[in-house]
Amino acid sequence: MTAPAALRRIEVVTIGDELLLGFTIDTNAAHLARELAAMGIEVVRRATVGDDAPAIRDAVGQALARTGAVITTGGLGPTSDDLTKPAIAELFAREMVLDAAHLRWMQERWRSRFGREMPESNRAQAMLPAGAIKLPNNHGSAPGIWLEDADGRFVAMLPGVPREMRGMLADTLLPRLAARRGSGAGTVVRSRTLRTTGIAESLLADRIAPLGPLESMSLAYLPGLDGVDLRLTVRDLPAPEADARLGQASTTLLSTIGDTVYAEDSADLAEVVLSACRRAGKRVAVAESCTGGMLGMRLSAVPGSSDVFLGGVIAYHDDVKRHLLGVPDGALRDHGAVSEPVARAMAAGARTRTGAEIGVAITGVAGPGGGSEQKPVGTVWVAWDVDGDVEAERLQLWGDRHEVRYRAGQAALARLRRRL
Amino acid sequence: MTAPAALRRIEVVTIGDELLLGFTIDTNAAHLARELAAMGIEVVRRATVGDDAPAIRDAVGQALARTGAVITTGGLGPTSDDLTKPAIAELFAREMVLDAAHLRWMQERWRSRFGREMPESNRAQAMLPAGAIKLPNNHGSAPGIWLEDADGRFVAMLPGVPREMRGMLADTLLPRLAARRGSGAGTVVRSRTLRTTGIAESLLADRIAPLGPLESMSLAYLPGLDGVDLRLTVRDLPAPEADARLGQASTTLLSTIGDTVYAEDSADLAEVVLSACRRAGKRVAVAESCTGGMLGMRLSAVPGSSDVFLGGVIAYHDDVKRHLLGVPDGALRDHGAVSEPVARAMAAGARTRTGAEIGVAITGVAGPGGGSEQKPVGTVWVAWDVDGDVEAERLQLWGDRHEVRYRAGQAALARLRRRL
Repeated sequence: MTAPAALRRIEVVTIGDELLLGFTIDTNAAHLARELAAMGIEVVRRATVGDDAPAIRDAVGQALARTGAVITTGGLGPTSDDLTKPAIAELFAREMVLDAAHLRWMQERWRSRFGREMPESNRAQAMLPAGAIKLPNNHGSAPGIWLEDADGRFVAMLPGVPREMRGMLADTLLPRLAARRGSGAGTVVRSRTLRTTGIAESLLADRIAPLGPLESMSLAYLPGLDGVDLRLTVRDLPAPEADARLGQASTTLLSTIGDTVYAEDSADLAEVVLSACRRAGKRVAVAESCTGGMLGMRLSAVPGSSDVFLGGVIAYHDDVKRHLLGVPDGALRDHGAVSEPVARAMAAGARTRTGAEIGVAITGVAGPGGGSEQKPVGTVWVAWDVDGDVEAERLQLWGDRHEVRYRAGQAALARLRRRL
Repeated sequence: MTAPAALRRIEVVTIGDELLLGFTIDTNAAHLARELAAMGIEVVRRATVGDDAPAIRDAVGQALARTGAVITTGGLGPTSDDLTKPAIAELFAREMVLDAAHLRWMQERWRSRFGREMPESNRAQAMLPAGAIKLPNNHGSAPGIWLEDADGRFVAMLPGVPREMRGMLADTLLPRLAARRGSGAGTVVRSRTLRTTGIAESLLADRIAPLGPLESMSLAYLPGLDGVDLRLTVRDLPAPEADARLGQASTTLLSTIGDTVYAEDSADLAEVVLSACRRAGKRVAVAESCTGGMLGMRLSAVPGSSDVFLGGVIAYHDDVKRHLLGVPDGALRDHGAVSEPVARAMAAGARTRTGAEIGVAITGVAGPGGGSEQKPVGTVWVAWDVDGDVEAERLQLWGDRHEVRYRAGQAALARLRRRL
């Protein structure tokens, strides 16, 4: 047996028909990658296979041969489609054996927690490959598994339910991987993101091009509903040096494109706007027509938002615009619900009816139906009232219903941020 | 050159550092899988690699050798991290050549659409592998690429931006793949989902187990925030027979667990509730505290919801509960905002203040802060008022802030559905 090399690179295999068939979006893979990168371990490849033992063996076997370090997610649950453990046991030429202690623990848990006997279908969760190390699960009943060969190559098997996977990763697997990272440790893979909105990817690239390539750093352009994120990544440096390089590079970028950047790293624009309101000593309320509550949801998703975000009115129907926001009949009749006068009256109504200092309003045609020649799908009016001073802007947005609604909220927040 | 076999199986390779690093969640893969399954082509494996030419070549090369049919997403954009085309050209031993017509088209497009010259960084988008077929992009500027060898093995390269990928898939790639499916066509991979809520995965499994295995069909348990979805899948059958088998199997399942099923296939519970309201001739309004608009967002996400969903009040702050919903001071003072009297008053206020027949209210402790011994994080009161008849229920939910909020909305909808 040779001592395993210090762990720097790992592969991830996510398992489940539901992932391959496209009925579940794989959020585990992204979470794993972020957590591992933070400790200097890079996910170098990812594969997804269905609930199919030969495919599981094949994908995990290739990853083991290539990288020697593999994390799997999925296929540890109680139901009949769960094949991960036996398939990987076969790859390591191990038998499956009953873990009596775990079986008793599960039986206890069902009695105390649900007040009934454990369903028979949970018994498979207590079967483990011989020689496996159990990774405790404090967030569910399926334990994770660590299986390792004589050469130090290993597979760590985690459950597929995101909450259980995340809990087990933090509680047990990350500490174990940190130890594997070995004494040659001390370097990290680290990223910084500059979040831009309101500018196209290629225009950003053109403004950045004259800077030349950034030293020992990768720069990725990530267009999304929020705008285009610019992600800088450095690898294999000690943390202080990594941070220094990222700091220099982002200062350089900000000198060129700072006007388009609303946040660093993962901060949502809603969070940025709430902070700006807090600094200005002003509380905000919303009036939402086509977005139906999405802007309120984003603002209230920020923990601790309640000192600045008061709430507001979902004015989907015109009667609600009239009665709860005081939008004048005449404005609705003469200009229609998607119009500047209505947006302005909604913003003012949100402010005055809730007692806030700021009101933000959105009214538009989100589609797919409801468009006209003058107001095609994607026509949106946003308005913002700060202490009685109301401004408004017409937007022409693109995309499907969800995209138009999301972009409308993002644009309203961007306008309010600029105003503050 | 041999005639390529009828296309039944395909692999997907998604490309991008942002996917491997975990900063972008891969929604393209799920979309591709669903669209392909609908025409009887099964995604049998998926791989994700970074913006790294050797890794792209390796993953695409393996998939080609294994399955002979590959779709890639990502790495066709204008910026410097885009390597897909040259890497795959090398795999096929092709040169990169300039497509002058596409260059002119892009230059025109920038002038007419943005009123300025095309940025230089877009020029790379007009470079194609020799012998490649261009797949037009009606939703962006990077064309897709179809590259095929003398034995009929192919790689179809699509952009990574979801909107462009989806448009190009529908407009150009699916028709091309349909032709490839060949004359032996006529069979499909088809699924049906029974959506359950309010019951644990293993309890469902126990109730289903006595039915025995379902004939020539796979059954997957998909736990998520909505509840547990049961997905039945049949493969390689003509469409009518596939539908008949799925119909029989779901009838059998419904006879056993029908009380837990709120919808078939992908319907959101919000959609189911709106239909129930429509049938009952009643309009609905919301009063949301901890969910901050999420329930309104879900209801208004359903196209055509405006005949039944009126809107409501985001009563995040207690003053908004008082002033816009008429929640009595005494109820707030004596019982706190998260209490049965407040939930009931909110539901009634939502109904009466908007003129709806139904009001639904949610008030709770979403966390991470704000919990107490009597009302720990996850304590939620939901209430529903139908024509003045108010009911309420206390829930103890689990998970992070987003999960508690989502589950609160789902539970409120489930209660209202049962009531209707």
